[in-house]
Amino acid sequence: MKTSICDQYGIDFPLFAFSHCRDVVAAVTNAGGLGVLGGTAFTPEALEQELNWIDEQVRGKPYGVDIIVPAKFEGKGEKLEAGALVDRIPAEYREFVTELLASHDIPDDHKRRVGGSSLSGDTGEALLEVALRHPIKLMANALGVPPPYMIEAGQSSGVPVAALVGAREHALKQVAAGVDLIIAQGTEAGGHCGEVSTLVLVPEVLDALAEVGSDIPVLAAGGIVTGRQMAACVAMGAAGAWTGSVWLTTEEAETAPHTVQKMLTATSRDTIRSAGRTGKPSRQLVSDWTNAWAPNPGGQKPLPLPLQSMLVEPTLRRIDKLAASGHPGAQELATYFVGQGVGLMNKVKPARTVVLEFIEDYLAAAQRLSDSVPD
Amino acid sequence: MKTSICDQYGIDFPLFAFSHCRDVVAAVTNAGGLGVLGGTAFTPEALEQELNWIDEQVRGKPYGVDIIVPAKFEGKGEKLEAGALVDRIPAEYREFVTELLASHDIPDDHKRRVGGSSLSGDTGEALLEVALRHPIKLMANALGVPPPYMIEAGQSSGVPVAALVGAREHALKQVAAGVDLIIAQGTEAGGHCGEVSTLVLVPEVLDALAEVGSDIPVLAAGGIVTGRQMAACVAMGAAGAWTGSVWLTTEEAETAPHTVQKMLTATSRDTIRSAGRTGKPSRQLVSDWTNAWAPNPGGQKPLPLPLQSMLVEPTLRRIDKLAASGHPGAQELATYFVGQGVGLMNKVKPARTVVLEFIEDYLAAAQRLSDSVPD
Repeated sequence: MKTSICDQYGIDFPLFAFSHCRDVVAAVTNAGGLGVLGGTAFTPEALEQELNWIDEQVRGKPYGVDIIVPAKFEGKGEKLEAGALVDRIPAEYREFVTELLASHDIPDDHKRRVGGSSLSGDTGEALLEVALRHPIKLMANALGVPPPYMIEAGQSSGVPVAALVGAREHALKQVAAGVDLIIAQGTEAGGHCGEVSTLVLVPEVLDALAEVGSDIPVLAAGGIVTGRQMAACVAMGAAGAWTGSVWLTTEEAETAPHTVQKMLTATSRDTIRSAGRTGKPSRQLVSDWTNAWAPNPGGQKPLPLPLQSMLVEPTLRRIDKLAASGHPGAQELATYFVGQGVGLMNKVKPARTVVLEFIEDYLAAAQRLSDSVPD
Repeated sequence: MKTSICDQYGIDFPLFAFSHCRDVVAAVTNAGGLGVLGGTAFTPEALEQELNWIDEQVRGKPYGVDIIVPAKFEGKGEKLEAGALVDRIPAEYREFVTELLASHDIPDDHKRRVGGSSLSGDTGEALLEVALRHPIKLMANALGVPPPYMIEAGQSSGVPVAALVGAREHALKQVAAGVDLIIAQGTEAGGHCGEVSTLVLVPEVLDALAEVGSDIPVLAAGGIVTGRQMAACVAMGAAGAWTGSVWLTTEEAETAPHTVQKMLTATSRDTIRSAGRTGKPSRQLVSDWTNAWAPNPGGQKPLPLPLQSMLVEPTLRRIDKLAASGHPGAQELATYFVGQGVGLMNKVKPARTVVLEFIEDYLAAAQRLSDSVPD
C-alpha cells in the first residue's frame, strides 16, 4: 500500500499486530505488517531471549515492543519493602477467591495464591533497556501516558513511541506528552478499554488532534479482526489498524486449547468489560469468573491495580491448566482477554494467512466503497 | 449514488433518518435521503395530521414510518381493564421518583405522575392503519420482531418492512419472520440498543445472513453522525446508514433548547446505556436521572416495559419544561435518548445541510480509502 505510515515504518500493509507470542510477531512482520511483542510479563532476561529469536526470524524487518507502564497504581511513589503490596490484599478477598474455586470443585492452593506486581510498572524501565538493545521500530505503552523515561528513550534512540487511548481527552494528553503514534482503541477491544466505540472514537480523536494542529498518525483499534473493518477505519481517516484478539486463534499462538475452542464458538456477545482481572476495566470472555465480579450484579468489587492481578493471575493460570485437563468447574471459570471481534473468529489459521486474508478483504472493501460512488 | 438500495427506494443517497419531527423527515427526503417518522408517541389522529403535512412537503418523494411494537411487555396477552397496568407500579417506585425530584428542589405533582402505555404496543395496529393510507415507502419496528399484522400489511401493501437488531441471532429471527430490511444497530446508538459495537455487528450480521443464503440489505446504525462513518459501514458491506441522534441538533428538531446545549458540549463519554427510562436498556445523556437507576452502582432497579416509561415519562417531560425555564435541579436531571455520536455533534445546522455534508464527507472518505490502494 502507498500510505505515508507504510513509508515511515517500512511496511507493506499498515496492520499492527500485538501479541505475547514471538511466533506471531515474526510471522506478521514477515508477511508485511508490523508485529509488536507484549513484553510486560517477561523478565528482562526472558525478553532478551525472545527478541534475539525475533531478530533471527525477521532479519531486519520492522517489529515493536509493548510494555505496560500504568500512569496510576496502588503504591506508586511510595518506597515499599518487598511484600508490602501483598499485605494490602485484604483477607476477605483471598477468602472470596477460595470460595469461588470451592464452588467449582477446585481446592485452594495456598502456596500459589499471590503473584508478582508486573502491572505496577516496576520492571518497565529494565524491559525497555533490553528492548532498545534490539533494532525495534516501535515502542508502545498500553495504559495511560508513557512514563518520561519512555518518551526520552524514544527521542534519543529515534524509535517512535505509541500510546493507546480510549477517549478524546486522553489523546490530547498523549500528544502533549510527546508520543509519535496514537492508537485509538474502542470499547469493543480485548484487554484494557474505555467506553467509546471504535466507529465514534476514531473520528473524534482525529478531529481533536486536527483542532490542536497535530498531524501525528492515528491507528484504529478495537474489534478489528478483518480487512473490511480495517478498511472502514482507513476510510474514516485512520492510518491503519492495531489488532490483538485475532492472533489468539492463530496456529502460532500459545492460547490454551480450551480457550481457543471457547473463542471459536463465541459470538460478539460472549465478552464482558470487567475490572475483575486487573483492577481496571478490561474486556474478556464471559465466564463464571467474570460473573463473580462487579459490575455484574451482586459481584465482588475488584481491588485497584496491581493488587487485583496479584490476587488473581496465579489462580487464573491454575484454572487454565485444570481446564486443559478437562476439569468441568475450571472450564466454567476459564476466561481470557479478547474483544467483541471474537464473534468473527471462527477458524484456526496460520498468522501469515490472517495477514493475507486481511489484505484481500481490505482490497475488496475498498472496491465496494468505490463502486458505490458515481464516476 | 448507484447502489441497488437507492434504486429500490427511489433515493439518491442511502441515508435513512429517524426523527419524531416531521420537518426533519421532510427535509431529509427532499435532500435525497429517506426520512422516517417515529410514530409511536402520536395518537392515530395526530399521526394522520403529521403524514398529511409530510405528503404536502415531499410531493411523492419516499419517506417511512417507524412504530415501536415490542415483542415482549408486561401485561401482553392478558385482558386488562383500563388502569390495571397502572396498578402494577409499586408504591415504592412512585416514592423513589418523588424523593429524586425533592432532592433536586422539585415538588411532586401527583396529578401528572403516570403516563399512557404507548410502549405496550396497544396502539401499534391503529397507527399502522393510518400510515398505510399514505404513500409510505417503508415501515419499521424498532424493538424486536415485528408483529404478524405488520409483516402481513407489508406483504399485502408492497411496503417493505424494516427491523432493528442488536445481535446476530436477532437478525436471523427477523429474516425468518419475513422482514425486507435489517438495521444492524450497535451499542453506541441512542435509544434502545444492544451490547455489540457497530463495527463488529455489521460484518457479523452480514456473515450470518450470507450463511443462511439471505441477501436482504443491511443498514448500519449506531454512532453514525458523519458521512465518513457511513462510508466506513458501506465499505464493510452495509447498504447504507440508519441515523437518529444527528437530527436532534438540527434547526428543525423539536429538541428542548437546554438539551440541545447539553448535546453540543457533550463528548462521546457523556452517554450511558440504562434501563431507567423505558425498562429496557437504552442509551441517553448521562444526568442525575440516569445516575439514579441501575446499572449505576446503588441505583434503583427499573420496572419492566412499559411500566417504567409509564412511571417516568410525564415526570421527564415536566423536568424538561422546568429545565427550559432555568431550574438548576431540573437541568441536572434532564436527559434525552442520544448515541455516542453526540461527541461529534457540535453545531446546530439545517437538516438539509446535514445531508449535504454527509454526502461530501462520504465522498471524501471513499477517495481516502481508494487512495490507500495501489493502482
